Amino acid sequence: MPGNAFGQAFTFTTWGESHGPAIGCVVDGVPPRIPLTQADIQQHLDRRKPGQSRHTTQRREADAVRILSGVFEGYTTGTPIALMIENADQRGKDYTAIKDKFRPGHADYTYWAKYGIRDHRGGGRASARETAMRVAAGAVARKVLAHVLGHEPAIRAAVVQLGPNGVDRAAWDWEQVDRNPFFCPDPNAVSAWESFLDGVRKQGSSAGAVIEVVGEGIPAGLGEPVYDKIDADLAKAMMSINAVKGVEIGNGFAAAGTPGEDNADAMRMDGDTPVFQGNNNGGTLGGLTSGQPLVARFAVKPTSSIRIPRESVDTHGEEVEVATHGRHDPCVGIRAVPVGEAMMALVLADHLLRHRAQTGASPA
Amino acid sequence: MPGNAFGQAFTFTTWGESHGPAIGCVVDGVPPRIPLTQADIQQHLDRRKPGQSRHTTQRREADAVRILSGVFEGYTTGTPIALMIENADQRGKDYTAIKDKFRPGHADYTYWAKYGIRDHRGGGRASARETAMRVAAGAVARKVLAHVLGHEPAIRAAVVQLGPNGVDRAAWDWEQVDRNPFFCPDPNAVSAWESFLDGVRKQGSSAGAVIEVVGEGIPAGLGEPVYDKIDADLAKAMMSINAVKGVEIGNGFAAAGTPGEDNADAMRMDGDTPVFQGNNNGGTLGGLTSGQPLVARFAVKPTSSIRIPRESVDTHGEEVEVATHGRHDPCVGIRAVPVGEAMMALVLADHLLRHRAQTGASPA
Amino acid sequence: MPGNAFGQAFTFTTWGESHGPAIGCVVDGVPPRIPLTQADIQQHLDRRKPGQSRHTTQRREADAVRILSGVFEGYTTGTPIALMIENADQRGKDYTAIKDKFRPGHADYTYWAKYGIRDHRGGGRASARETAMRVAAGAVARKVLAHVLGHEPAIRAAVVQLGPNGVDRAAWDWEQVDRNPFFCPDPNAVSAWESFLDGVRKQGSSAGAVIEVVGEGIPAGLGEPVYDKIDADLAKAMMSINAVKGVEIGNGFAAAGTPGEDNADAMRMDGDTPVFQGNNNGGTLGGLTSGQPLVARFAVKPTSSIRIPRESVDTHGEEVEVATHGRHDPCVGIRAVPVGEAMMALVLADHLLRHRAQTGASPA
Amino acid sequence: MPGNAFGQAFTFTTWGESHGPAIGCVVDGVPPRIPLTQADIQQHLDRRKPGQSRHTTQRREADAVRILSGVFEGYTTGTPIALMIENADQRGKDYTAIKDKFRPGHADYTYWAKYGIRDHRGGGRASARETAMRVAAGAVARKVLAHVLGHEPAIRAAVVQLGPNGVDRAAWDWEQVDRNPFFCPDPNAVSAWESFLDGVRKQGSSAGAVIEVVGEGIPAGLGEPVYDKIDADLAKAMMSINAVKGVEIGNGFAAAGTPGEDNADAMRMDGDTPVFQGNNNGGTLGGLTSGQPLVARFAVKPTSSIRIPRESVDTHGEEVEVATHGRHDPCVGIRAVPVGEAMMALVLADHLLRHRAQTGASPA
Repeated sequence: MPGNAFGQAFTFTTWGESHGPAIGCVVDGVPPRIPLTQADIQQHLDRRKPGQSRHTTQRREADAVRILSGVFEGYTTGTPIALMIENADQRGKDYTAIKDKFRPGHADYTYWAKYGIRDHRGGGRASARETAMRVAAGAVARKVLAHVLGHEPAIRAAVVQLGPNGVDRAAWDWEQVDRNPFFCPDPNAVSAWESFLDGVRKQGSSAGAVIEVVGEGIPAGLGEPVYDKIDADLAKAMMSINAVKGVEIGNGFAAAGTPGEDNADAMRMDGDTPVFQGNNNGGTLGGLTSGQPLVARFAVKPTSSIRIPRESVDTHGEEVEVATHGRHDPCVGIRAVPVGEAMMALVLADHLLRHRAQTGASPA
Repeated sequence: MPGNAFGQAFTFTTWGESHGPAIGCVVDGVPPRIPLTQADIQQHLDRRKPGQSRHTTQRREADAVRILSGVFEGYTTGTPIALMIENADQRGKDYTAIKDKFRPGHADYTYWAKYGIRDHRGGGRASARETAMRVAAGAVARKVLAHVLGHEPAIRAAVVQLGPNGVDRAAWDWEQVDRNPFFCPDPNAVSAWESFLDGVRKQGSSAGAVIEVVGEGIPAGLGEPVYDKIDADLAKAMMSINAVKGVEIGNGFAAAGTPGEDNADAMRMDGDTPVFQGNNNGGTLGGLTSGQPLVARFAVKPTSSIRIPRESVDTHGEEVEVATHGRHDPCVGIRAVPVGEAMMALVLADHLLRHRAQTGASPA
Repeated sequence: MPGNAFGQAFTFTTWGESHGPAIGCVVDGVPPRIPLTQADIQQHLDRRKPGQSRHTTQRREADAVRILSGVFEGYTTGTPIALMIENADQRGKDYTAIKDKFRPGHADYTYWAKYGIRDHRGGGRASARETAMRVAAGAVARKVLAHVLGHEPAIRAAVVQLGPNGVDRAAWDWEQVDRNPFFCPDPNAVSAWESFLDGVRKQGSSAGAVIEVVGEGIPAGLGEPVYDKIDADLAKAMMSINAVKGVEIGNGFAAAGTPGEDNADAMRMDGDTPVFQGNNNGGTLGGLTSGQPLVARFAVKPTSSIRIPRESVDTHGEEVEVATHGRHDPCVGIRAVPVGEAMMALVLADHLLRHRAQTGASPA
Repeated sequence: MPGNAFGQAFTFTTWGESHGPAIGCVVDGVPPRIPLTQADIQQHLDRRKPGQSRHTTQRREADAVRILSGVFEGYTTGTPIALMIENADQRGKDYTAIKDKFRPGHADYTYWAKYGIRDHRGGGRASARETAMRVAAGAVARKVLAHVLGHEPAIRAAVVQLGPNGVDRAAWDWEQVDRNPFFCPDPNAVSAWESFLDGVRKQGSSAGAVIEVVGEGIPAGLGEPVYDKIDADLAKAMMSINAVKGVEIGNGFAAAGTPGEDNADAMRMDGDTPVFQGNNNGGTLGGLTSGQPLVARFAVKPTSSIRIPRESVDTHGEEVEVATHGRHDPCVGIRAVPVGEAMMALVLADHLLRHRAQTGASPA
């Protein structure tokens, strides 16, 4: 009933506040005898790490992960894997100015309404810092997928819109994504995005983004009708990421305006293998994977912590102004890229194990 | 682990195929001593019922619901409530022509890939007929909300886009929604929509739709961070409806292009009560309800069963053409309106009970 | 959160009151392509059916089960299997005399305390009639075990103590169990038990029993440490049966008085196979099956509905006497035999599917 | 699906091996604004701590618990509470002699059968060390019970049988339990138990025990029929403790031999309050608490690690002898006393929160 866990067969439970001593998670259901090291996890955390360019928060977080259980002599044992990151850089004082104030667009007011208590230290549990553990758990999920499928599916994400600026899909190049500070797949868009985000930052404003996550090498048949459809669980997983306001699969909202005969992906045979002639459905039909690339997009709202003052109220019922100084991402959507990848990996690992519970098969 | 149940504190489990003897569900966790009759449920089913205009399928389904347990002398007892609808009009023969064929855009191929078995009777479990039980369970959820909150929140939905045709939000009138065959809130749009859908039907094509669901009278603080956020569970609930390809909350995808200072809803005091100056966030912040109207939208793809022939393959690996005759909705999105309402009611009832487990409070 | 479901990978949810229109269950997670008919289920229900001798209740219940979903052309489809039994013989008037009285030893008072409502019709949901659906679901579980393991394990139970009278274990003969009205494995004990129970019935008293359930042909390694140990789940399953007050595994309570060197079952090799030299542990070590026979025993208290008057109180706070006439089992433990078998089958089927989720293996 | 978590509304998940760097747990669902300190938890851990007399293992474990999240300025926040104990005294080399051997009575063989991997360090996850986290979580559960009920129920346990030696129930004195090394409630039994256990230890043997747990001050109506009965969940909770082989409630197995008229606890009025005239049912009827003392007993088998050599086999299929030297409890049942108390507290806290989800009431 509490909401800090995800998954049913492959599960993870996260804990920790942005300014407590540590954050961590327990990953459970992992098959035994999979090689797993701290470095396997760290490489993904490093992609999410702040402070790597002027376009993300300048907080310094080493984010060094430790494996505390569930791995023996380099292999998973089948018992729960506890992961922990100590919070090295806790500057609690950054937050005293807004101690009693409800920051607009943040969870301050709603947590107060729910719990009747105010942990003002940087958002506490509602901070995007929590997503570090999603990335850590997601790294374990990738190992599980590779182990069970016999190959590692390619689960990759990119920013396809920064503020109002999109990409040219014809210029998409996955190789480019890790070569610019925006995880942008279109090399021609980068310099415009840099100028745009520099302007946003200088104004003390912030920008939103749209991230696209693509999973390739996923077998057909994963997902559990009718409520735990693969796309339903992806929607939940993506929507649970901080600041996300929309999720779509395949052609998504555009499907509403497309005639039926154009939308349903036709099929032909390629030798003995049925193949689809399009992927409007984004790799899922009836809530089950179709074997085509799994395509999900999610929209991230602009960072709520901005320098431009905004009207608000405080815990005493006084009207106040809130301007957040300190080190914030002008666009939290950028660092959501490895988080989105992790969430797809986590959903797939869970469904892969659920699938073989019922069918006994490990589809490749 | 199987996916036929939804909810944790207020739960429902559905069963049944479109062409089996019956469909049903078990609703559990319902507080005792709530008045509940079959008529309370039937009125919602009647709004979803097919054959009410030329714009929906001409199948005749009485959809008469029976309460088989959990209610004694007109009141809930706290034990599981079993609901059942017999399938009166099972024309299995409608489907023999496509017995071995994978209908494009349908779940036929993926169910085959998952289960290795083909229940060709009208989609079997993947049929939209399953959504009747969502509406039935949703009617119980509304009773729970009214009982626990002390007032019945207004949970209403409307079609805001039919095919490529939107509505004029300035003309929005909830009163109109049940006065036209499209659940359209804009009376000026109706005649154009009629012409459009007549054309679609005559061509043997189909159209998609966007549905907006609005919940008013919802207290602040519902939702469970961080994975079971109220918006995450709404996203899952909506995405699990047949043919849905996208979900958004508040301003949704538009948030990505909005500057931070415009997007974060400011707050002021109205006497002793904090009030928001806007609702870009759609009634949720940090995954918890804010007390503002809860606003979710979902996109439904065009009906996959169309008369226009489409290329496909069959279970024997042969290339075939599929044209679906018989009685199909030209736009399944229309009848998704009461389903969307039901899913919001179900998510809220579940979270309301979960909320009081932890906090002991029944917020009003 | 509601308590009407059992299992995680192989699950079932029951509904229905003893005197409502029907009782039923939804069995989910069943692998596809398993042959399943109503007769497969009915044969087990018939062993539990009342009225088969003078030693059980004289109520006439046909207990004819119907499969309403999840089976197509004789095979499971992987979708939820709904089972239903109509309550043919509802004599509600039998209960009017005790309408407001709390019957001693029954759940009347505690249901009243919990739900604040009194469904006086024969115990309502707390009636042992609910166990019919356990037996029905257990029949499906047996099919799953046989399908996944490639052989049907022998899951059998017997009454090993009736009132104060035990059996001679040296005379144990499984063949005898279905040849006497007590499911007694010791043919020499039967006539003494008949005299004993005739006396109990004539006095208007009742008797308890101890049932032993033995599962053979179970592979090693099933169970999930540390909370969902196989013995922990068996304990829960058995203790959840009406009127059960104790559960033990292997030598059970006797283990407390046994020296360590006598209790730990030694091992030797039999060719390439490790074999145990004893089974004090009842087929489980560390919460996982060991491959030896799984042995569980449970104690059933004497039927609480007796003709001998007992002191009690009623819903109005008045002191009353309660004597229950009507048709009751003098020893409910007897008909608990097929229920105990069913619960072991259900626990094993669930753990077998859970096991292959994590390990991918279907041990034989 | 993995088995390392317990509870639904109040949950805890444990992780860690006996010889890894640390053990820990995540406690979730805790209501906000409850005062909680490390000392509140430590006091219960200290009762379980080894090395406090010659009758328990001489291992030195400081067992100092740290709260890593979920508590802010001395109060719970409603977010997950992470607890951790570092493993100070890891003498891995103690175990090299039995590295490949299956110790009789232990989980070595069954873990090998399940996971195909051997973590030989002191039982790894199957070690009784795991129970420290149950005690820690149980301390939080006690706080929750006190907070929700408005009073702290008395949840206490005692050893009522050591090896074959029982206690005189007429001499029961709860005050004595913490004044002798056996948690024995009968002061007259202590010296005989000392002699007995000294003898057992000198022979290199071990002894079992029976522990009785009693909960007083529990309101009526807790529990969820029909599978999550309070006694069913207690049975699972107790049986999941290492080395437990039997659980009974109230008069337990003795109920089977008691006539119905003697077994059903009669009721009378005490002013306005219904009172029971006996407690054969151990505080539960129909799976719901009755308001009487909740009485559970569990049997612990003798420690499997003994110096007397026993026949076994190893991972290479060789026949071997196993004699376990090193520091082991001659009777693990003794230190199970605080664990049993913790499990009852954990079950009650979970059911109390589940109860108020459905009914909205916090019964006192």
